[in-house]
Amino acid sequence: MPLVRIDLASTTPPVHVQGVGRAVHEALVATFNAPEADRFQVIGRHAPDELVCSPEFLGVAHSGPVVFVQITCAPGRSTEMKKALYQHIAHAVSAQGYFAAADVIINLVESARENWSFGNGLAPFAQA
Amino acid sequence: MPLVRIDLASTTPPVHVQGVGRAVHEALVATFNAPEADRFQVIGRHAPDELVCSPEFLGVAHSGPVVFVQITCAPGRSTEMKKALYQHIAHAVSAQGYFAAADVIINLVESARENWSFGNGLAPFAQA
Amino acid sequence: MPLVRIDLASTTPPVHVQGVGRAVHEALVATFNAPEADRFQVIGRHAPDELVCSPEFLGVAHSGPVVFVQITCAPGRSTEMKKALYQHIAHAVSAQGYFAAADVIINLVESARENWSFGNGLAPFAQA
Repeated sequence: MPLVRIDLASTTPPVHVQGVGRAVHEALVATFNAPEADRFQVIGRHAPDELVCSPEFLGVAHSGPVVFVQITCAPGRSTEMKKALYQHIAHAVSAQGYFAAADVIINLVESARENWSFGNGLAPFAQA
Repeated sequence: MPLVRIDLASTTPPVHVQGVGRAVHEALVATFNAPEADRFQVIGRHAPDELVCSPEFLGVAHSGPVVFVQITCAPGRSTEMKKALYQHIAHAVSAQGYFAAADVIINLVESARENWSFGNGLAPFAQA
Repeated sequence: MPLVRIDLASTTPPVHVQGVGRAVHEALVATFNAPEADRFQVIGRHAPDELVCSPEFLGVAHSGPVVFVQITCAPGRSTEMKKALYQHIAHAVSAQGYFAAADVIINLVESARENWSFGNGLAPFAQA
């Protein structure tokens, strides 16, 4: 059910573009109990002037390439689960050696379970 | 009031890119009572590795080109209206012969009526 | 905390692309009390057939280049603050002489304070 938007620079090596996608999905499976088969991602590559990131915010400095991860998902995960998700994404992305953990920006948007259709016009999570 | 984001492959023939946009709007008019003139859409074309879709989820197989339709709209539509919207979109898109109904992925994000401005800095749906 | 998506035509002169980004951030600082350092923006450039804007809606005519501004932000701003934001954005963008105030389309999506991580996997606004 998550729909993940990943935005990064067009200069990102393709192996790392794909690596971010895998890392985010792995984190959703591990911490949000997303099914392995529940993977839907839209990646956007951008010119240098299209990604604007504060050089420093709340004590975290941003100096390298940045990646934005915006996840629309079902509501109801606990704060602890959300914290675990952020930590897992930042660790799994940075472990690949291209983006620093400091430069992984994450935002969740929660949308009701009836607000999703995964093909054929069905609404598999809508209550009868 | 809907703001529609449509993401699809850059190899999609332009006539079908435009056809998806028309089909989604037609569905919003028919099932969500959106005014005909209330059409605001942002389409993104993507390289092959930028659209990630599970090969199968909840019994629906995804094998052809995929199109993601994310619709931010006002809250308050009934579950029945949402189901009708999904069915209308999947049918109207697939009827054009390029995308299969199985490969039309839809997500709604509901946002309050005061959260919209359609030009001139006005907030036409905000309560006084 | 706002994550701002700005979508406009690829023919927009770069100085005006950057100008819209600055104008939107200036408006968030002035009307939403966003910290100056809280700037995170994703800009998308689009082909002519990728931005669909009604020629007229609610009495506002759209004839020039259009810019879509979708802002995901924390919830809780008053309606008055939101109206001030729209007015500030429309004025600051149009004052740069490229986009008309009528052609600045704005949508807010509110997302809980625990739904944000600005690097290092931290959740600075989550309650303990």
